[in-house]
Amino acid sequence: MTRILFYLEEYSHDIWRDAFHAIDPTIDFRSYPDWGDPENTTEDTYSLVWQPKPGLLKEYSGSKVTFSIGAGIDHIMRDPNLPDHIPIVRMADDGLKEGMAEFVVMSVLMLHRGMVDLIDAQSRKHWARIFAPAASSINVGIMGYGALGQKCAAALKPLGYKINSWSTSPKAAEDGVTHYQGMAGLEDFLANTNILVGILPNTQETTGLLNMETLQNLPKRASIINAGRGNLIVIDDLIKQLDLKHLSGAILDVFEEEPVDKAHPLWEHPKILITPHIAAVTRPKTAAEYVLRNIENYKNGRPLENVLDLKRGY
Amino acid sequence: MTRILFYLEEYSHDIWRDAFHAIDPTIDFRSYPDWGDPENTTEDTYSLVWQPKPGLLKEYSGSKVTFSIGAGIDHIMRDPNLPDHIPIVRMADDGLKEGMAEFVVMSVLMLHRGMVDLIDAQSRKHWARIFAPAASSINVGIMGYGALGQKCAAALKPLGYKINSWSTSPKAAEDGVTHYQGMAGLEDFLANTNILVGILPNTQETTGLLNMETLQNLPKRASIINAGRGNLIVIDDLIKQLDLKHLSGAILDVFEEEPVDKAHPLWEHPKILITPHIAAVTRPKTAAEYVLRNIENYKNGRPLENVLDLKRGY
Repeated sequence: MTRILFYLEEYSHDIWRDAFHAIDPTIDFRSYPDWGDPENTTEDTYSLVWQPKPGLLKEYSGSKVTFSIGAGIDHIMRDPNLPDHIPIVRMADDGLKEGMAEFVVMSVLMLHRGMVDLIDAQSRKHWARIFAPAASSINVGIMGYGALGQKCAAALKPLGYKINSWSTSPKAAEDGVTHYQGMAGLEDFLANTNILVGILPNTQETTGLLNMETLQNLPKRASIINAGRGNLIVIDDLIKQLDLKHLSGAILDVFEEEPVDKAHPLWEHPKILITPHIAAVTRPKTAAEYVLRNIENYKNGRPLENVLDLKRGY
Repeated sequence: MTRILFYLEEYSHDIWRDAFHAIDPTIDFRSYPDWGDPENTTEDTYSLVWQPKPGLLKEYSGSKVTFSIGAGIDHIMRDPNLPDHIPIVRMADDGLKEGMAEFVVMSVLMLHRGMVDLIDAQSRKHWARIFAPAASSINVGIMGYGALGQKCAAALKPLGYKINSWSTSPKAAEDGVTHYQGMAGLEDFLANTNILVGILPNTQETTGLLNMETLQNLPKRASIINAGRGNLIVIDDLIKQLDLKHLSGAILDVFEEEPVDKAHPLWEHPKILITPHIAAVTRPKTAAEYVLRNIENYKNGRPLENVLDLKRGY
């Protein structure tokens, strides 16, 4: 009998339990803190967690695979006592990919069609028409081109945008997408990007990658979407470039500190829309399918999908 | 030599002149008030107008076709002295269709993903996550299913939404779209619509069609987009249904009075986003192609595209 050790604070566990039982009613779904005696962890036990209490995964080190409830795994990696023999699998359920594509298409359209300015104009009761250029004249540059980035590109293409991608690893040639790679390719990528979409994971390489200098490489009036991890952008530098009018707007979903402190200037900046980390939210139904499919992979000696590569850091 | 009599207040004419001359440098593009002596109107003269001064088209009744700069033609029809022998052609250039599809996809995603509430939350510095359902569980109902409506449906389908259409005339069966027709089909259409998209033309039949009673037919928490004509909706009734929380939000691009009066409650309503009639803006380049193609049609005795049908009123 497959046992799932589930950890998630603040949100309901019932919807998750129901999602697993809808697929397999025999699953032993254990909601923290009712994980049972660690000594009695069975051979067929897996954990599914979000921001687990440090030390908890070590205590239950009989678990065979650690599944992250989200696409990111920094919430697991910050545990100084993390057992290093248990593979960690990032979430990439269909619902999460669909949600990210929805958010990115929405945000690209909002920046293209002047919505940040129009929302600000409404707050001042100001009627000012904005005539947007054709989508075919706009380059959307996606930073981070794994499963999520590719799904976003596929959703943006039918609207006519030109797509660039930037990633740390090489990507296969693809119709309608220009790939840029690594630090050597960053400047060219930025110079050819009108709307930048950040969906990079949190690694040492990507921390602070968008700063005063690199943001300056974007063309004048470029705009920014960040839906990966907050520390991709040095936020004070972004605000400076917006105030200098080098950049025209930003839609930010992720932040170094969440929730954003009420005293932070982000809340009131007229060129910034902030959303509360909702771009890609794991949907229990598709996540349960994903986890159970990977447990089958594990049991049958097949490779796990989206397993953490410690060398890359994601 | 083809002559174009051009009328548009407030905006630059140069971009229009350039767009025509880029296709055919010999065109005699005449910018109002320099239309010349009405007596000397040539056999090869056409007008391209937006909100023309009443009586002007009668004065230049030697013009062979009146082209509207926008999709709507009410700005021409309000002229009491309109000559009735000149065919009127609605604009349906590719740029206008693309622009409408962009605005509708953006607005559907914004309502689906809770952006109206999130923008209001930002103004109160309130961090409150919203978990949206899958697109496949949402019915988008498009009112008005001509060239624009069909383009919107095609752009929405890849995102997974279920599509309903409502129109006054029958439509051919189409994969992934449920058609409803006429007053007999309205109640069912509304009962099956979570996000309503209004892109109907301005006719007697559609004036005030969405009112206290018909809005009540929508499911609880439905939302509204209007990008056709303002008088489709009785605006006080919409505000009442939002305040009663029967409806959850609205994105409005068109209004009975434009610009919207600064004293109007629309500006400050937390559940309403207003945009200044920018959903579908005719793009000079694609519009010039459209007009010149139809002038060729006229000269060769072929039917004009999107010509006004006086019986239907659009």
